[in-house]
Amino acid sequence: MTEKIARFFAENRPATPCLVVDLDVVARNYDRLSGALPDAKIYYAVKANPAPEILRLLTGLGSSFDTASVPEIEDCLAAGATPDRISYGNTIKKAADIRRAYELGVRLFAFDSEAELEKIAANAPGSRVFCRILTSGEGADWPLSRKFGCDPEMARDLLLRAAALDVVPYGVSFHVGSQQRDLAQWDAALSTTAAIFRDLEEKGVALRMVNMGGGFPTRYRTDVPGTDEYGFAIDEALRRHFGNRIPETIVEPGRGMVGDAGIIQSEVVLISRKSANDLRRWVYLDIGKFGGLAETMDEAIQYPIETERDGGPAEPVILAGPTCDSADVLYERAEYRLPVDLRIGDRVAIRATGAYTTSYSAVNFNGFAPLQAYYI
Amino acid sequence: MTEKIARFFAENRPATPCLVVDLDVVARNYDRLSGALPDAKIYYAVKANPAPEILRLLTGLGSSFDTASVPEIEDCLAAGATPDRISYGNTIKKAADIRRAYELGVRLFAFDSEAELEKIAANAPGSRVFCRILTSGEGADWPLSRKFGCDPEMARDLLLRAAALDVVPYGVSFHVGSQQRDLAQWDAALSTTAAIFRDLEEKGVALRMVNMGGGFPTRYRTDVPGTDEYGFAIDEALRRHFGNRIPETIVEPGRGMVGDAGIIQSEVVLISRKSANDLRRWVYLDIGKFGGLAETMDEAIQYPIETERDGGPAEPVILAGPTCDSADVLYERAEYRLPVDLRIGDRVAIRATGAYTTSYSAVNFNGFAPLQAYYI
Repeated sequence: MTEKIARFFAENRPATPCLVVDLDVVARNYDRLSGALPDAKIYYAVKANPAPEILRLLTGLGSSFDTASVPEIEDCLAAGATPDRISYGNTIKKAADIRRAYELGVRLFAFDSEAELEKIAANAPGSRVFCRILTSGEGADWPLSRKFGCDPEMARDLLLRAAALDVVPYGVSFHVGSQQRDLAQWDAALSTTAAIFRDLEEKGVALRMVNMGGGFPTRYRTDVPGTDEYGFAIDEALRRHFGNRIPETIVEPGRGMVGDAGIIQSEVVLISRKSANDLRRWVYLDIGKFGGLAETMDEAIQYPIETERDGGPAEPVILAGPTCDSADVLYERAEYRLPVDLRIGDRVAIRATGAYTTSYSAVNFNGFAPLQAYYI
Repeated sequence: MTEKIARFFAENRPATPCLVVDLDVVARNYDRLSGALPDAKIYYAVKANPAPEILRLLTGLGSSFDTASVPEIEDCLAAGATPDRISYGNTIKKAADIRRAYELGVRLFAFDSEAELEKIAANAPGSRVFCRILTSGEGADWPLSRKFGCDPEMARDLLLRAAALDVVPYGVSFHVGSQQRDLAQWDAALSTTAAIFRDLEEKGVALRMVNMGGGFPTRYRTDVPGTDEYGFAIDEALRRHFGNRIPETIVEPGRGMVGDAGIIQSEVVLISRKSANDLRRWVYLDIGKFGGLAETMDEAIQYPIETERDGGPAEPVILAGPTCDSADVLYERAEYRLPVDLRIGDRVAIRATGAYTTSYSAVNFNGFAPLQAYYI
């Protein structure tokens, strides 16, 4: 917990549950990432946390933005970003939304299928397009399905087809999977990407950009490689596969930019056992899967949890949320331990919750209000 | 699709995605359930769909209400329900919320642990309390964790303890699991409940009420027993286990009351393949896991999906939502088939979506607005 956040909690004692984000940490993350990848352009993945305070800060620092929808594009523009700094990175877009983005000045679009490419050519003529390829997602904590990207062979065909349409075949993108801890995954994806670049060059199409997506992790309960290590591994892989003809590069950090900048404070609503000889206590918090902690799905993301009583003896607990939904259990298998003398009414700090929390929270499930947030 | 909903879509052509609920179907469901269980009091589980239109309708029909939070209690009061028709059925409540409910006139509270019982006694003196027991949830489609309820033995002890506090030990509740298709589950739970009643009577505590929870299913892709069959099975089980001393009974239908009353209309945003020889097409809709279809988690709830091109040849598809989250895949293993000539821009009807959709939708994940709904 940063001093600034600790002071905010102490002075304001805000109603729980609430998220507090330290904007200084976001700025530091931006600086670290641009330091580690000095040749890459940073496109912040707005979906991770679209708060205007974060968008304004990053606009000021020189960031560009990866957006998923027209409202996200409008939010970036409202924060002061010019449209040339905005990528419409969703591969699933309505024709009307592509047109609207184009009218707003956006000229960089993602696709991974023929139909999407045709929609872009028809509604955003002259724009630069990049094709997303499938990667395995091995080593990532948050599941990477086959939802995005296409086979490299199909990517080649589609980029060639793009050259015949009224768009600029600009590059290739991939995503190694969110919270990716295996540095070799970037190498594998860059190897495939370089092969596509060579093939297309032979056919007279010069691609210029590699979008390496996100995947940069936040430290949750276990250590992750440092930003510098990612920078070094990526730099090395670029040299290995592109030699002295390294293309423009883009990265799209979301979690890696804001994850560790935020802390959720929550209250213990109930502590109980299911029977007299139950070995594990149930600890129910006033935030759960539907109030902002959706990424606890299948216990994928395991946030560090701190209490004011840490230090003494602790025992295993099952953690759950406050709704009447039986699926609203946070951690049952992940072996969390909390202090034996934890009490109902205690506050707990759920760390590294700056990303994928506020915007995930349900409108009013069970009558609970969406997660309140403060950006300081 | 009811005629009323079909006409609404045809005449209004509302922007997608949107949910339309036919209130006549809700009224019909209420009548059927009260017909099938004439001796039970119906407490509608507000969390299933807290729309004021539904609450007002059910208030008028004579329903009572099972609520999960103070805002849900306030919604019921605003809809015209008197506090004696409201149960605070969440077993996880903050002391301040219990007090607030008490101030609003609520006198019926759930608990499943000693700490919760003590909170109720301290903050809602004189109220009736019922203890929820654990059940297996076997046969239910939506997962029933061990989150709610306690061992029958502990329930006995706690109800005895309640008699010594300033509350009325009123009864026992259980929940057989949502979308429960095995009628025998009520029998098993009622057998356990009757044993608790007998034990407490021996100790001089006369319980008066059995809260049989919800679990009444909606017809999704597969047939479910009819309301009458549930009524018959429950009636028989009550007689078997309680003889001629059948207690007051409560049921808490949510899904069974509003599930089949609603239809979501969604637009096909993209149809694609991942490679030239991909066997299954991906169909991306403008609604997904984070826009209201949260119950597709692990493909638990499988909504019937209809298109305007049904009837001709169909082929297997993978269905996914519109967000940039790779977890936003609706059905990959559930073997959905859609027409071969389905086109981008087509509208599809996602049936039986009146329950657990609107209130589950995310505030603005990926910039997408929460699910719009119309009650007609």
